[in-house]
Amino acid sequence: MRIALDAMGTDQAPGPEVAGAIEALRDFQADVEVVLVGDEPTIRAELSKYAEVPERLLVHHAPDRVTAGDAPASVIRRKPDSSVVVGLRLQKDGASDAFVSAGSTGAVMATSLFTLRPLPGVDRPAVGTLLPTVGAPMLLIDSGANVDCKPHHLIQFAHLGSTYMQNTLGRANPCVALLNIGEEPGKGSELVAETYELMAVEPGINFVGNIEGRDIIGGEYDVVVCDGFVGNVLLKFYESVAEAIGSRLHRELDRSEASEGLEFVFRVLDYAETGGAPLLGVGGVSIICHGGSTPTAIKNALVVAAQAVRTDMVEQSAKDVRGVEVS
Amino acid sequence: MRIALDAMGTDQAPGPEVAGAIEALRDFQADVEVVLVGDEPTIRAELSKYAEVPERLLVHHAPDRVTAGDAPASVIRRKPDSSVVVGLRLQKDGASDAFVSAGSTGAVMATSLFTLRPLPGVDRPAVGTLLPTVGAPMLLIDSGANVDCKPHHLIQFAHLGSTYMQNTLGRANPCVALLNIGEEPGKGSELVAETYELMAVEPGINFVGNIEGRDIIGGEYDVVVCDGFVGNVLLKFYESVAEAIGSRLHRELDRSEASEGLEFVFRVLDYAETGGAPLLGVGGVSIICHGGSTPTAIKNALVVAAQAVRTDMVEQSAKDVRGVEVS
Repeated sequence: MRIALDAMGTDQAPGPEVAGAIEALRDFQADVEVVLVGDEPTIRAELSKYAEVPERLLVHHAPDRVTAGDAPASVIRRKPDSSVVVGLRLQKDGASDAFVSAGSTGAVMATSLFTLRPLPGVDRPAVGTLLPTVGAPMLLIDSGANVDCKPHHLIQFAHLGSTYMQNTLGRANPCVALLNIGEEPGKGSELVAETYELMAVEPGINFVGNIEGRDIIGGEYDVVVCDGFVGNVLLKFYESVAEAIGSRLHRELDRSEASEGLEFVFRVLDYAETGGAPLLGVGGVSIICHGGSTPTAIKNALVVAAQAVRTDMVEQSAKDVRGVEVS
Repeated sequence: MRIALDAMGTDQAPGPEVAGAIEALRDFQADVEVVLVGDEPTIRAELSKYAEVPERLLVHHAPDRVTAGDAPASVIRRKPDSSVVVGLRLQKDGASDAFVSAGSTGAVMATSLFTLRPLPGVDRPAVGTLLPTVGAPMLLIDSGANVDCKPHHLIQFAHLGSTYMQNTLGRANPCVALLNIGEEPGKGSELVAETYELMAVEPGINFVGNIEGRDIIGGEYDVVVCDGFVGNVLLKFYESVAEAIGSRLHRELDRSEASEGLEFVFRVLDYAETGGAPLLGVGGVSIICHGGSTPTAIKNALVVAAQAVRTDMVEQSAKDVRGVEVS
C-alpha cells in the first residue's frame, strides 16, 4: 500500500508532514509506503534534519503549491503541478492508494471530486468528521462539502457515514441520527422534516430519529447527519471552544494527575490531534486535515488513510450505494 | 414597573421561580413588582417556606399549566387558563410590563407572538441569546424561533439585535456579523450569500462581514446573525459542551484559586445562569428561560426584563424597524 502525503499542506510545511510521516511509518506494517508530494529540494532539506530516514518514505516532486488565495475549483487547471493535483493524480494513475493533505480544504475537496470522481449513485460526496464526545467518537456528516442540500443528499450521507463507521472503523450496526431542533417527527426546517420521512423508511441504515445540538456530546450516536452548512458551523465552533478552554486549562492542570472524569475534557482539548476527515463517496481515498495539523495529527490522518485502504472503503461504499439504488 | 413571572415554568416549579423572584426583588429599585403567575395554592405553599416575603411579590392565579406534550400553537386556544397565556394577557391588558417564563419555549414563543403581535415591519420576531465568550457576551440571533428564513428576515434580525445590544444593554455602535462557512463575500448557502449582499448596503447597522463558527468564542462581535435552525443547533450544542466539561471541572478545580485565565472557562461553565433570552420584534417584553433554570438564572432573567422595560426596548425597536422601512 502506498499513501501520498501532500508535503506542502500545513501552515508550517513541510515540517509537520515529514515528522508525522516518519512517526506513522514506525507503527505501520512493512507493506505501507508514504510518498511525500511537494517541492523536492524543500522536502530533502527537511529530511536532512533526521539522522535516519525510513526506506519506505519516498519523495515525489511537485514544484507548485496551492495557496489560500487560489479559487478551489480553478486549482486543477491553473496549478497542475501543485502538490494537491499531483498527489491526487498519483492515485488516479494507480501509483498510490490514498491521499492525505492539510492544504486548502476547498481545493482538496474540489480536486478530489474532479480527479477521483463521485461513486455511481452518489450525487454529493461529503466530509465525515469524527467528533470527540463523553463516550465514543461520533461521525458528523456532512461537515462542510455541501451547503444547499436536498433530502436525498442527506440520505446518501447517512449511507456513506454508516459504511465508513462500520466497515472502516469497525463500529457494529452504527446508529444514525438526524440533527434537528426538536425530537419529534415533523420538527425543524423543510429540509430535515422531509428528510426524516425518507430516512424513517430507508433500508440499510439504522435510523434512530432526530436529535438536538445538546445530544451530540453524550456520544450515544455513531453517525449524525446534517447539511454541510450546519455541520461546518458546528465543527468549527467546537474546535474553537475546545481550543479556547484547552489553552487555558493545560496551563492549570497536570494531565497525569487528573482524575478519570477529566479524561473526556482532555480528549476534547486534544481534538486537533484527531487527524483527518475523509471525503466520502468518491472513487478513492482522500483525507483532509487542518492547516494547523501537528505531526501527531498528520500521523493519525495517515493511519485513517491506511485503514480506509485496508478495509476497501471505496469498494464497500460503492456496493452499499448501489444496493440502495436497486432497493 | 410590574413583571409577570410564570411560576410554573421550570422543571422544579415553583421553587426556583419563587426563590429567583425574592432574590431579584432584593436588588431591584422600589418601583419594581414581580407577579407570580400560576396555581395560587401551590405558589402560596412555596411562599410559606420563607420567613419573610417581600411586599412587592404578588400572586396572580392561573389554574392550568402548559406541559411538554402541548402543541405550542394550540396552547392559546386549549389552555387559556395556563400560566403562560394568563401571564402574557396581563401584559396585553396593561396590567404588567414584561413576561418571564421557563416553560415550553415553543409555547411561550407562539403565545407571545399571538398575544403581543409582531411590531409593524417585522415579519419574523426572533430570539436573541447572549453567549459567553472569551471577551464580552455576544448576541446570537435567531437562536430558534424561525427555521426557514429568507434574506430579508436575517436583515431584520440584524436590526433587532443591534437595537437590543445598543439600547437595552448599552453596547455602543454594536457590530453585526453574518454566520457563514467562509469569510469572503459570495461564500456559503444561497440564503447567506444573498443576505450578505443586502446586509452590506443596509443602512442603520454596523455590518462587519461574514464570520465562521470558530470566530464566535473570541467575542469580537456584538451581534451574530443566522437562521433559527443553525442558531438553535449551535446554542444547544454550546450549552451541552459547557455542561459536560463544567460538571467534570467543577469537581477538580477550586474557582477561588483559579487564575485569571480560567475565569473565562468558569464563565462558560456558568452559562446556564446567564438568564433569559428575549423574543425580539414583538409589541411587548417576553423573556424565555431554560426549563432547568436555577433561582439565579430566574433572577437574571427578571433583571433582563426590567432593563428592557426601563430602556423602552419595544418603542426603540419599533422606531428602528420603521426607520428601515422608510429608507
